[in-house]
This record gives sequence, C-alpha cells and structure tokens, in this order.
Amino acid sequence: MNEPTFKFAGIQMLIGENKQENIKNAVKLIDEASANGAVIVSLPECFNCPYSTGVFKQYSESLGSSETIDALSECAKKNKIWLIGGSIPEVDKVDGKIYNTCFIFNPQGAVVGRHRKIHLFDIDIPNKIRFKESETLSPGNSLTVIDIGYCKVGVGICYDIRFPELAMLYAKENCKFLIYPGAFNMTTGPAHWELLQRGRAVDNQVYVAAISPARNPDSTYQAWGHSSVVSPWGEVVATTQHSQDIIYTDIDLNKVTEMRSSIPVYQQKRNDIYQIINQSSTTNNTYH
Amino acid sequence: MNEPTFKFAGIQMLIGENKQENIKNAVKLIDEASANGAVIVSLPECFNCPYSTGVFKQYSESLGSSETIDALSECAKKNKIWLIGGSIPEVDKVDGKIYNTCFIFNPQGAVVGRHRKIHLFDIDIPNKIRFKESETLSPGNSLTVIDIGYCKVGVGICYDIRFPELAMLYAKENCKFLIYPGAFNMTTGPAHWELLQRGRAVDNQVYVAAISPARNPDSTYQAWGHSSVVSPWGEVVATTQHSQDIIYTDIDLNKVTEMRSSIPVYQQKRNDIYQIINQSSTTNNTYH
Repeated sequence: MNEPTFKFAGIQMLIGENKQENIKNAVKLIDEASANGAVIVSLPECFNCPYSTGVFKQYSESLGSSETIDALSECAKKNKIWLIGGSIPEVDKVDGKIYNTCFIFNPQGAVVGRHRKIHLFDIDIPNKIRFKESETLSPGNSLTVIDIGYCKVGVGICYDIRFPELAMLYAKENCKFLIYPGAFNMTTGPAHWELLQRGRAVDNQVYVAAISPARNPDSTYQAWGHSSVVSPWGEVVATTQHSQDIIYTDIDLNKVTEMRSSIPVYQQKRNDIYQIINQSSTTNNTYH
Repeated sequence: MNEPTFKFAGIQMLIGENKQENIKNAVKLIDEASANGAVIVSLPECFNCPYSTGVFKQYSESLGSSETIDALSECAKKNKIWLIGGSIPEVDKVDGKIYNTCFIFNPQGAVVGRHRKIHLFDIDIPNKIRFKESETLSPGNSLTVIDIGYCKVGVGICYDIRFPELAMLYAKENCKFLIYPGAFNMTTGPAHWELLQRGRAVDNQVYVAAISPARNPDSTYQAWGHSSVVSPWGEVVATTQHSQDIIYTDIDLNKVTEMRSSIPVYQQKRNDIYQIINQSSTTNNTYH
C-alpha cells in the first residue's frame, strides 16, 4: 500500500470575551502547528466569541467584511496550509439570519468551503444542561466536502456529529477524514464525545477529528475539551485533557484502505434492503 | 413517566460439538433465567453447533422437523417467556440453502419470528482472522421486528450490528430494544464489540443487548464473550467476562423516553437533507 500520510493539528484554544485576543491567539497557535509540520489545521467551534446564544449576534460577521475571516485567510496563506476555521457566528448579508459557520481556507488563503451547522444544539437534560441555539441561530442546509488533494474531507460542527446520516453521506462521497469543530459540555462530554467519534470512525471506516475549545473557568459554558483524533479502526490516536493544547496526528490513508479491505462493509452493504440518500441539492462548498 | 420495566436475561453458554448436549444446556440455563424473573431471554449465535462453516450443513435443521426448535418452543411455553433463540444453521426446505437463523418464540411457544442473518461474516484481517460464512451460508433478506407487548424488539445477528442502517430502520419502526445474538472473536471483540453496541444505543436511543457464546478453549473459533446490555444513554448496564454466565438487566423504558426528551434527535433529524429508507418489502416476522 502506498497512500499518502499527512500531518493534522487540532487547536484546543482558550477562548475569552475579547474577539481580537481570540483571533490573535488562534493565529499564534496555527503558526505553531504549521511550524511543527501540520498541513491541515482545525480550530474549535466558536473560537472568536463566548459560546452563548445571547452574544452571537453581537460577535457576528459576514464574508467580505470580516476581520476574523481576513485574519484566517492571511494565516492560511502565510503558512500554506488547509485551515478548517472552527466556527464563528456568521450573519447572512441577504436574510440577516445568524449561523454557526465554519469557513474553510486553502493554502492560498481562499475561502473554499463554508459549513453552516446543520443541526442546532437544542437540548434539555433536567438539572444538568439546557441550551437552545435556535433562540438566536438558524440552521444550515448543506453538506460540506472539501478536496484537500490527499483526500476528501467532510465537515460538521459539534451537534452534527450526533446524526449518523451526515457521516454516512460523507463516506458515500468518498471522504476519508471527517472533522468536527465542537464544544461538548460536562454532561454530554464524558458520556458521548469519544463514543460518537469512535462510532463514526468505525462505522464509516474514516479518520474522525473533533476539536474543542479549552475549558474556561470564567465561561458560562464549561467545555469538555478532550480534542481527539480517532483512526478508522476506532483507536484514539491523539487526545488531550481540557487545557489549551495542540494535538497532532499523522493521518495515514493506508489505515483507511487497510480497514476497508479487512472488514469490507462497503462491499457488503445491502442496498437492496436499505439506502441512505442525500435529499439536499447542494453537497458541495457553495457559498456567497 | 410511567413506562414499564421488564427483566431481560442473556445466556452466555458454553457450546460444544454435541448438539443434544448444547440444547440441554440451553434449556437448563433458560429455565434458570426464567426462575430468576426474566420475561425475555436471548441465547447466543450458533448455540447448537460449533461456529465453523464446515459443519453448518451437518447441524442444520428446518422448521417443522427440528429438535432444536421443538425444544426451544417447549421451553418458552413452559416458562411463559419471550425467547430470542440465538441462532442455528437452518436449511430451507424449498431451496436447500443454509441460513444463520434466529427463531423467536412467544410465551405460548409459537414461532413468531425468524431472522436470517442479513450480513454474512466475510472478513480477512491479515495474520489475525479470516472467516467466510458465505462459503456455506446464504444471507437473509428481511428485517425482523417482534412486538413483545412491553415494546417492539428488533433482531440482528452478530455482523449485522456493523451496519448502522439496520438499527436505524428498527428505531424508525419504533423498536426500543435491539437484540443481537453474536460471536465476535479475539481480534474484533476487544476492538469493536462494546463500541458497536454503545454506538447503536446512543445513536438510536434504544437498549441494545449483544449475547455471545462463552469462550471454548477447544473450539477453532475463540469467541470474545463479554455479553452485554447497553442503555439508551450508552452505559454498559450488564456485562460479564468470557466464561459461561447469565447476564440480567431491568429494561426500563423510562430511560428511552428520558433520553429522547433530553436529546431529541428524532425531532431534529433533517429529513429534508437525508433519509434512511427501507427498500425491502418484508419488514415483519414472515417465515414459512
């Protein structure tokens, strides 16, 4: 086997209330990851603002007039890396709606993808956690697949990982690496964060990365942290605790090929019995 | 909340080459499980014969002339329990093909379901394990849903658990409990047995049981054991090691309701973007 291997870095950064400081911290950590050989880097969900429905509007920006997007573009270009830009609150210039959006940059600094979180995080676990993104956010309607040369990458944001259909469709489009910027909490984090990554990885025989903010004791939302990468065999190949950190992994596409030939579920799917179908018209990186 | 709770037992039995001894052992252990209050009991995969493609034909039986089915029917009736009859090699009287089949009995002893393993176990992990059920077995073509009064139960056999589509369709048909008689091995067992159960449970917000044979040092196939039950929240609520044992759990349907109301993924599915569809014409307990 002779598939390429490339280095991925996930930035588990500490996020505060000062947007400019957050951007500066992100850029500094991306520079460091790139200096350490990463060719694809992911930021966490909501990396430029606190994770709180009350402030999303105030922090929101639009493509074309966004200091955050400009800084990431510049940073991707300078370091010549693929950059999965975590997410930011994005306000649509046309309809004024606010989305939880991941902008994706190529090594020339161009925006080549925009994933608006499809599944909004609306949960209510009595006496544990209640959160309703839909109070201020609107959901995206498209899958996001980026071809980074080494392979295709599918992108989801946080709660998107709970929906197996999304990962299954990405695998069907031949993605070999799924990246979920996300921010699980102190209830669902220990229960499901790693399980969901490992499940998506083994079921779809792909690498899965989930990149969280560091836990900020001052925040109203306590992030679980534990940014990780899981191999197609389901092994956690990189992880960390809850402090600011960068995780690194060599994404070895031979492992995908190996898993798919050892346990050939894709040749064994019974499409005469079931089908997972893509109902959306746009599965590519369409944005405006 | 006021949903019913009922006791499930999984029989991790030691299986040898003597069919009559295997049946006798199964009946003895089911009697014990029933005496301990179980109202639904599952046997493991291939409980009346060694797990080996070379012997399936020799051990195979047909409904209507089967000492194994007759014994299980009698046992279910005597104990007034629902019995998920693990699996046996079944030869079809019409086409002569051999299936890996789970017969399911109601508390009156009637056969109310027949699940023929849909996904045959054909894998080849270099230097670890090679097994090709398709050398001697044919695959089933139907989903199997049984209404046991407390709730609907979906049944799969072993390798069927690797295919998320099956569990998703069962959940869509409102099954709240999935039972997989199975026999993972010493390679895939430690890597994936528990992960797959927990993944199916959390993704579909159902109870999942997977019931294995005990490990038999004399067997050519070394079973992983570790029969388990997982709650909708993804917790392993019953498990064991690899010796002969019976596992017991109270299946508390309030836990299903609780999970579905805390994290309401079924109301949040984006069926405008994706759909999982059932292509088979028969989703019920049709058999002859």
